[in-house]
Amino acid sequence: MWRGGAMAGLAVAARAFSASASAGAGAGGVAMVQGASRGIGLEFVRQLLRRSDQGRVVATCRAPASAAELQKLKEEHAPGRLTVLPLDVTDESTIEAAAASIGETHGSLDLLINSTGILSIPNVIQPETTLSKVQKSSLLLAYEVNAVGPILVIKHMWPLLKVGGRSETGRGFSLVANMSARVSSIGDNGLGGWHSYRASKTALNQLTKTASVELGRKDNIACILLHPGTVDTDLSRPFQRNVPKDKLFTRDFSVQKLLSIIDNVKKSDNGKFFAWDGQEIPW
Amino acid sequence: MWRGGAMAGLAVAARAFSASASAGAGAGGVAMVQGASRGIGLEFVRQLLRRSDQGRVVATCRAPASAAELQKLKEEHAPGRLTVLPLDVTDESTIEAAAASIGETHGSLDLLINSTGILSIPNVIQPETTLSKVQKSSLLLAYEVNAVGPILVIKHMWPLLKVGGRSETGRGFSLVANMSARVSSIGDNGLGGWHSYRASKTALNQLTKTASVELGRKDNIACILLHPGTVDTDLSRPFQRNVPKDKLFTRDFSVQKLLSIIDNVKKSDNGKFFAWDGQEIPW
Repeated sequence: MWRGGAMAGLAVAARAFSASASAGAGAGGVAMVQGASRGIGLEFVRQLLRRSDQGRVVATCRAPASAAELQKLKEEHAPGRLTVLPLDVTDESTIEAAAASIGETHGSLDLLINSTGILSIPNVIQPETTLSKVQKSSLLLAYEVNAVGPILVIKHMWPLLKVGGRSETGRGFSLVANMSARVSSIGDNGLGGWHSYRASKTALNQLTKTASVELGRKDNIACILLHPGTVDTDLSRPFQRNVPKDKLFTRDFSVQKLLSIIDNVKKSDNGKFFAWDGQEIPW
Repeated sequence: MWRGGAMAGLAVAARAFSASASAGAGAGGVAMVQGASRGIGLEFVRQLLRRSDQGRVVATCRAPASAAELQKLKEEHAPGRLTVLPLDVTDESTIEAAAASIGETHGSLDLLINSTGILSIPNVIQPETTLSKVQKSSLLLAYEVNAVGPILVIKHMWPLLKVGGRSETGRGFSLVANMSARVSSIGDNGLGGWHSYRASKTALNQLTKTASVELGRKDNIACILLHPGTVDTDLSRPFQRNVPKDKLFTRDFSVQKLLSIIDNVKKSDNGKFFAWDGQEIPW
């Protein structure tokens, strides 16, 4: 069923439909991975491409030209299976442009994974070990990238998600999966520290929950939050020293677990926060 | 006991002590109300001044000269009972200057109430009724005022709180009370909307909890969060239409209830979130 009638006034999707009503999506649907040039995002792209020969993947990152791993994946797969688009979560115009481009090429989205995250950048932002080291600039930067960015991506992809969720994806509704982290849990916060990162991810939890109420009620969309565990990526590398070896996951293992959650999630899970092992995390 | 020995390296407090070791605080201790020119903050100042003839109050606001109500309260009370200082939570240098000034005049703080909050300003920020109206500028402004501001105030007042908490206040430890709101609860969010305000207050909850872990462990300080109910103030006025009359509190009633919590809180309540009626609110 073509649900274009509900789209009046939603400029991006309207444009999408006029251009590509017949393009549709393959049997595997269309998945977007935002923040895909490395780490968990890149691994999502790799595994999504591996599991179906028909699903299409849109990978976004700040600088596609220098995203060597994504370009390699593109060459390894059939034409059209992987699209790589520029998107910087701190520049809303790039989010709008990506939405317009996906609309034209694919017409809809069945799955959106927001995977960007900032924890540390030498000389710019570091996880705080004490309140006396908390800087306004770090608080604002973490919030802009980890909380504001993903919610603006959902805002602009909403018209595409609204017409996604086709039954051939096996899910029957569109899904937004935002990468959060256990340290965002207020109830679970017994150690303190990491003020900027924690607060930004806690705010992401609230923004995702808030969006889930509206999107779940008005449209056939669910939004969930995921904790990937401590995964061996550039993000966690400076902080792995105190992580027991069996608690430090490979990207392959963590993303397998997260995709298993994404595959099995129900519409009634809308607004929930799951760890890699499927357990719900308290707010 | 003069706990100045623990202050080495903390510039503000060190300055405070050299200048005012003998000034000390009256029997009621020294309470700071940040965001005191109107609304709940102003009412806190009024009631704190009324309940003891010895306690001293430091009221901060952006523009003391035009804070008519505060200036009137100052005239009505004995010299020295109320100090009004400029403090803009979006300008960290004013927070530092206020800490230095309080250090010189009072030497310590027994109670810090963070009461600033932004919900709506015509043509600048409005509570969002839908995700499609969410703006980056609103998300960042609400975060800066409602979450970043209070945590920076705690950061700079920490040295003064560290040497406060005298037994004559009846509490035996210093207390930070941050004004949050029930809509910050993720678990309680069944309605959606108000993205910027919700997320900023949820982040404040996390930042307060994070600070409480460190301050409660290293020092004789507890931090709590308070929900004042829906109170008849400038902040809530544009949104009172759907509030049942018996659920719309006067400032007098709400602040009486909140001061009762502040008076009876225990060190073991560190990091908790209380509604006006003393009930804990889920994260």
